Amino acid sequence: MSASKRKLRYGMVGGGRGAFIGAVHRCAAYIDGQADLVAGAFSSEAERAKASAEDLFVAPNRAYGSYKEMAEKEAKLPAGERLDFVSIVTPNHQHFPPAKLFLEKGFNVVLEKPATFDLAEAKALKKIVEKTGKVLVLTHNYTGNVMVKQARELVRSGHLGDIRKVVAEYPQGWLSTLAEKGDNKQAGWRTDPKRSGAAGCIGDIGTHAENLARYITGLEIDSLCADLTTFVKGRKLDDDGNILVRYKGGAKGLLHASQISVGEENALNIRVYGTKAGIEWHQEHPNQLIVKYPDKPTEIWGRGNGYISDGLKKFTRTPSGHPEGYLEAFANVYAEAFRAIRAEVSGKKQPKDLDFPTIADGVYGMAFIETTVKSSKLGAKWLKFPKL
Amino acid sequence: MSASKRKLRYGMVGGGRGAFIGAVHRCAAYIDGQADLVAGAFSSEAERAKASAEDLFVAPNRAYGSYKEMAEKEAKLPAGERLDFVSIVTPNHQHFPPAKLFLEKGFNVVLEKPATFDLAEAKALKKIVEKTGKVLVLTHNYTGNVMVKQARELVRSGHLGDIRKVVAEYPQGWLSTLAEKGDNKQAGWRTDPKRSGAAGCIGDIGTHAENLARYITGLEIDSLCADLTTFVKGRKLDDDGNILVRYKGGAKGLLHASQISVGEENALNIRVYGTKAGIEWHQEHPNQLIVKYPDKPTEIWGRGNGYISDGLKKFTRTPSGHPEGYLEAFANVYAEAFRAIRAEVSGKKQPKDLDFPTIADGVYGMAFIETTVKSSKLGAKWLKFPKL
Amino acid sequence: MSASKRKLRYGMVGGGRGAFIGAVHRCAAYIDGQADLVAGAFSSEAERAKASAEDLFVAPNRAYGSYKEMAEKEAKLPAGERLDFVSIVTPNHQHFPPAKLFLEKGFNVVLEKPATFDLAEAKALKKIVEKTGKVLVLTHNYTGNVMVKQARELVRSGHLGDIRKVVAEYPQGWLSTLAEKGDNKQAGWRTDPKRSGAAGCIGDIGTHAENLARYITGLEIDSLCADLTTFVKGRKLDDDGNILVRYKGGAKGLLHASQISVGEENALNIRVYGTKAGIEWHQEHPNQLIVKYPDKPTEIWGRGNGYISDGLKKFTRTPSGHPEGYLEAFANVYAEAFRAIRAEVSGKKQPKDLDFPTIADGVYGMAFIETTVKSSKLGAKWLKFPKL
Amino acid sequence: MSASKRKLRYGMVGGGRGAFIGAVHRCAAYIDGQADLVAGAFSSEAERAKASAEDLFVAPNRAYGSYKEMAEKEAKLPAGERLDFVSIVTPNHQHFPPAKLFLEKGFNVVLEKPATFDLAEAKALKKIVEKTGKVLVLTHNYTGNVMVKQARELVRSGHLGDIRKVVAEYPQGWLSTLAEKGDNKQAGWRTDPKRSGAAGCIGDIGTHAENLARYITGLEIDSLCADLTTFVKGRKLDDDGNILVRYKGGAKGLLHASQISVGEENALNIRVYGTKAGIEWHQEHPNQLIVKYPDKPTEIWGRGNGYISDGLKKFTRTPSGHPEGYLEAFANVYAEAFRAIRAEVSGKKQPKDLDFPTIADGVYGMAFIETTVKSSKLGAKWLKFPKL
Repeated sequence: MSASKRKLRYGMVGGGRGAFIGAVHRCAAYIDGQADLVAGAFSSEAERAKASAEDLFVAPNRAYGSYKEMAEKEAKLPAGERLDFVSIVTPNHQHFPPAKLFLEKGFNVVLEKPATFDLAEAKALKKIVEKTGKVLVLTHNYTGNVMVKQARELVRSGHLGDIRKVVAEYPQGWLSTLAEKGDNKQAGWRTDPKRSGAAGCIGDIGTHAENLARYITGLEIDSLCADLTTFVKGRKLDDDGNILVRYKGGAKGLLHASQISVGEENALNIRVYGTKAGIEWHQEHPNQLIVKYPDKPTEIWGRGNGYISDGLKKFTRTPSGHPEGYLEAFANVYAEAFRAIRAEVSGKKQPKDLDFPTIADGVYGMAFIETTVKSSKLGAKWLKFPKL
Repeated sequence: MSASKRKLRYGMVGGGRGAFIGAVHRCAAYIDGQADLVAGAFSSEAERAKASAEDLFVAPNRAYGSYKEMAEKEAKLPAGERLDFVSIVTPNHQHFPPAKLFLEKGFNVVLEKPATFDLAEAKALKKIVEKTGKVLVLTHNYTGNVMVKQARELVRSGHLGDIRKVVAEYPQGWLSTLAEKGDNKQAGWRTDPKRSGAAGCIGDIGTHAENLARYITGLEIDSLCADLTTFVKGRKLDDDGNILVRYKGGAKGLLHASQISVGEENALNIRVYGTKAGIEWHQEHPNQLIVKYPDKPTEIWGRGNGYISDGLKKFTRTPSGHPEGYLEAFANVYAEAFRAIRAEVSGKKQPKDLDFPTIADGVYGMAFIETTVKSSKLGAKWLKFPKL
Repeated sequence: MSASKRKLRYGMVGGGRGAFIGAVHRCAAYIDGQADLVAGAFSSEAERAKASAEDLFVAPNRAYGSYKEMAEKEAKLPAGERLDFVSIVTPNHQHFPPAKLFLEKGFNVVLEKPATFDLAEAKALKKIVEKTGKVLVLTHNYTGNVMVKQARELVRSGHLGDIRKVVAEYPQGWLSTLAEKGDNKQAGWRTDPKRSGAAGCIGDIGTHAENLARYITGLEIDSLCADLTTFVKGRKLDDDGNILVRYKGGAKGLLHASQISVGEENALNIRVYGTKAGIEWHQEHPNQLIVKYPDKPTEIWGRGNGYISDGLKKFTRTPSGHPEGYLEAFANVYAEAFRAIRAEVSGKKQPKDLDFPTIADGVYGMAFIETTVKSSKLGAKWLKFPKL
Repeated sequence: MSASKRKLRYGMVGGGRGAFIGAVHRCAAYIDGQADLVAGAFSSEAERAKASAEDLFVAPNRAYGSYKEMAEKEAKLPAGERLDFVSIVTPNHQHFPPAKLFLEKGFNVVLEKPATFDLAEAKALKKIVEKTGKVLVLTHNYTGNVMVKQARELVRSGHLGDIRKVVAEYPQGWLSTLAEKGDNKQAGWRTDPKRSGAAGCIGDIGTHAENLARYITGLEIDSLCADLTTFVKGRKLDDDGNILVRYKGGAKGLLHASQISVGEENALNIRVYGTKAGIEWHQEHPNQLIVKYPDKPTEIWGRGNGYISDGLKKFTRTPSGHPEGYLEAFANVYAEAFRAIRAEVSGKKQPKDLDFPTIADGVYGMAFIETTVKSSKLGAKWLKFPKL
């Protein structure tokens, strides 16, 4: 049956019981009834892998003990049963190996951010994507929010004039103590340089702020000066970072992220100021976009209204005033992924208007992490952003 | 296979292309990967029914021309294929007939609110539910929001003391002109007494406000005085209503709803004041619950935090600060429905802690509509709330 | 010296140590450096009167033991020393006698609201004002807020279209217990029918909500239905009231006020919906006016910006973003009073564009109180608003 | 008459017609009825000086043509007429000369910020203050806000634990075009290096953010890295600045200020995060202080409530919910100044609990400006904060 006439089939690597982001991916993939989870290598622990498969109604014969087994066996299934794509939701150090393998075995891939463990891996992965011609979607989910997309439209259409200043911030408070010493699985791997990579806070959430700023403004970083800190004694990676940014073309920016900003939940915010207008968006109140002017009242643009750009209306599921949230934005990334994957598995050309983060964004993000960490280690010295 | 080991199978009545609430029910049923849509009588128009089935990946042989055909044929399927439940998402006048039929054919039912066309039907339906022993879940979705549930916990635990005053309001602006004259399908049936029932605005959204107030406070109405208005010339039903309420036990209330409050999107709000504390909840910012005290700082309780009541943690899908919205609350109603339906189809006892609106709430809501309309027709005269 | 070349001289009746509103009047009169307090009958207790005079730098020979003594003696002073006006800030039952006396002795009067103890007194006072030709300014201070004035401009200019619905609310929580049993001076007189009048909460703050709604919309009440309650046992007057309103011309309204809405500070709010736009104003955030439309983004109008109506710019003291508050609004009432009083004492014609509440507003407010109390006593029956 | 039994007498330098901050000082000095303006050198233009004196009811014989004339003549007046203090509200380059002269002539001084034109002047002025023993009050008005004072109390009392991070920001948008080319008097001098000093935006408002952060946290800057920008072509001074800060003791900070953040009014904000709690304060909503915790609901502390620290209650004029604003905070600086000045003119010891910014704060602020400008000129290089 044509991929446009049926639900897509996917498998998951990671995301077993107790995981956070795996459940988010599943909700995002499920919500529109466009895909079914039919296989998984949910955990390296056999017991947990099995239990997870039961929870998720995955048939025992497609609940694998490892992603390698899954890649091998699924690759041999007939076309009518074979997975259309794989979602990889493991910790960072386990992104590249399965992504490489599944791409090379002919599967499309949805990959949790940050793309890889380090920049070299990201560049290698980019080459593999190009070589295999498969779809790779990186889930920088915040760019799936329709009001973020509207913000980008306002920038692109010249509503803001020339961009002068960008303030991107992402304060959280959940790592204000040494949570990794206890049984907090999330805290454990995210603060472990062997699993997380060169950066803690900056890799985990700073990259979201970077991605959001670049998505909305289109600006590229010329140079940056980063002052990363590990506030909690005994922690191995940064848990806070303050970064000055100079963009190509003359705009200036501030980007700060923190996991010790006690009492903050998930306060990703961005403000962009141009010559004509400014915008402000708060992830915790994602249905509104604030637009400010020099000489007229501040406007609150609300998701779902008639004045939202026509091309963006497909990214909204409920009428105005019926709030959408984190999962719906995440699901918008999946919805675009589905368009690309349906085209790929049907042997059609990719649509030209696809709107999701790619491995190129992943490479950029890894370069951001590396440059930031290097700047900080040099005493918060200005560094040119590398050519990619 | 036991119903606890597999996804539930459901069919939908109504909800074809162009419908609003049908899509919402599907998202809510899909998001947790607990159910699959496998059958439907999506529209009385054959073309639209067929196209809708295709959109929704429903097999042609289970895409029916009418709910009657669906009930008859599905009832004959073997246990392993048969529907576990039916979701009814048609306009109000088409609630009772399919609900009755499916219940009597042995199907569980999820039913869009308001329960029925009038109070008599609601009472009749209640008897059918009781007689058949099947599950009927009424989707007063706002009570699915976890912060609403937390508000109820605060009332129940005495945190607010004795309740004195309730202010429930639900202003919208989308019917501030005669939208039903154009091709606005939603405006069409919701303002049509033949399809909507005795009330317009009060039936459509006033009942949500009533249900929310009762859910949180547990208070029953003693008497009310309702001043309903049709502001838009040519409209056949009320588009605005202001209601004074006296609760049993002495608390007082105001309830107002409007569809001509221009510029309002979906501003369902509630404030409840007790002797010890007050609470405030805004549907458009549903992740926060505001708690106020006579002698200490106002508190903002945030969804997903550790201090949320343990029993409510299952109603949250994402960590604090990752906003949930309308669909997630709706999905919480479905999640509870699934627990009940899984028990029913497995022949087990119903769990004692089920938390969803039932046909009893539907009867109450229909009585609210009838009493309100009657009060208003008498010149906004005080009327006793009927015994049910 | 001409009154336009010097500060005005005024005296105060009431407002001694421990009083609340007297201090507010003084700040409002002082802030622009337009008037000096030079006399006072601050208290009926001699000790307190004397101490208050010292606090306020009033010369001992002009610190009087009673308002009668003050009226008599001040009336005899030469023109160059004589008071230009008197501010009366006593409890309600002590409004009429001094107002009458000072007007008849030739003094202009600034009078705290509500105008008088009852409607009869207010009507009598109106006649005295008309007869004496003196200025009487009633300090319904909230209408002094520039964003309230802007709201009125928007109504008057047709920006909102025809007004359909008005929701005015004034919840407070400070009387949620029997505070009058202790030494709370404010609670004492405000809940005492002998000093406050026929109403408690409705007289004290409901009248502000009524005045605000009428000021902004210009609508006159046709009839109302009021359900007043005394929630706190042992209290003699209402501490909560819910009122349905029908305006002349067909608009509908809700007005509710409360002093038992626990945790609320001073949450006077108003929403007005017309056929074209709606507005929303919150006294606790008085520098913003929210304007809502059916088909474009919600606007936040900020005090002090260039787009504020030119005629209103004189009611602002600080640039946009430098918040003004309660006292500045109060001072705007005084500023207008000063314009009128300077004209009066200079023997000039009154300016045509004066913008302050008059005794006519006072009469209206007292009629509102009487009608509300009467409606409630009849069981919350609809009553026609009296002709005045 | 003892200074405690009478209003204080003051004169003003600058602040004539068309000035902004002069009017603010007058409101702040007037609001509590504690002082009278009796002399002035309002403008160097004779016409404007005279007209201003008339506006302000200053007697012609005390309306001077220059501050020098004023100092000389007022110094010769008898004690019972002589000024108690002088308020200096001229542009920055005109702060030091009159401040020096009046102090040396024996007058107390209230001085607009920033203290002087450059650091050398500030240090010189500090010595003069010490030598003369007169009172000098620097009007960093935001620290007069009672909720800012409450924030400091929370830090001092250990409520926040050890401070880790400070984010201070002050975006405005009013200089997003070359406003100084027109007749905008404020824009004119504030962007002119001859009148404003080495910095534009950072001197004008960055110093407020610095002062606020230091006032609340007590932290001293160890080193900073400043990236200042002039975005508007033709402008001579910075109109935007982003600064990384390292505090002594290990806390980190960001401070950014802007006058080209289009659409922002006066959005001075601060967030401080400690090990136990965090706080957030927004100047545009100054009556609230937000306090956040790792494990309990966020709190909104409201001005005027019983739980506000007892020692701070004198800094509030109106009950909770009756908003105070910019002028009231400014008046709190004056109120403390008055306490000091009354003591000084009465020959009494200075109270120990005085709470206003002094010349030491002025020196600190000027050092901040110089270090910031120097860092930026070196390419945004880290510099040690100088010893003072």
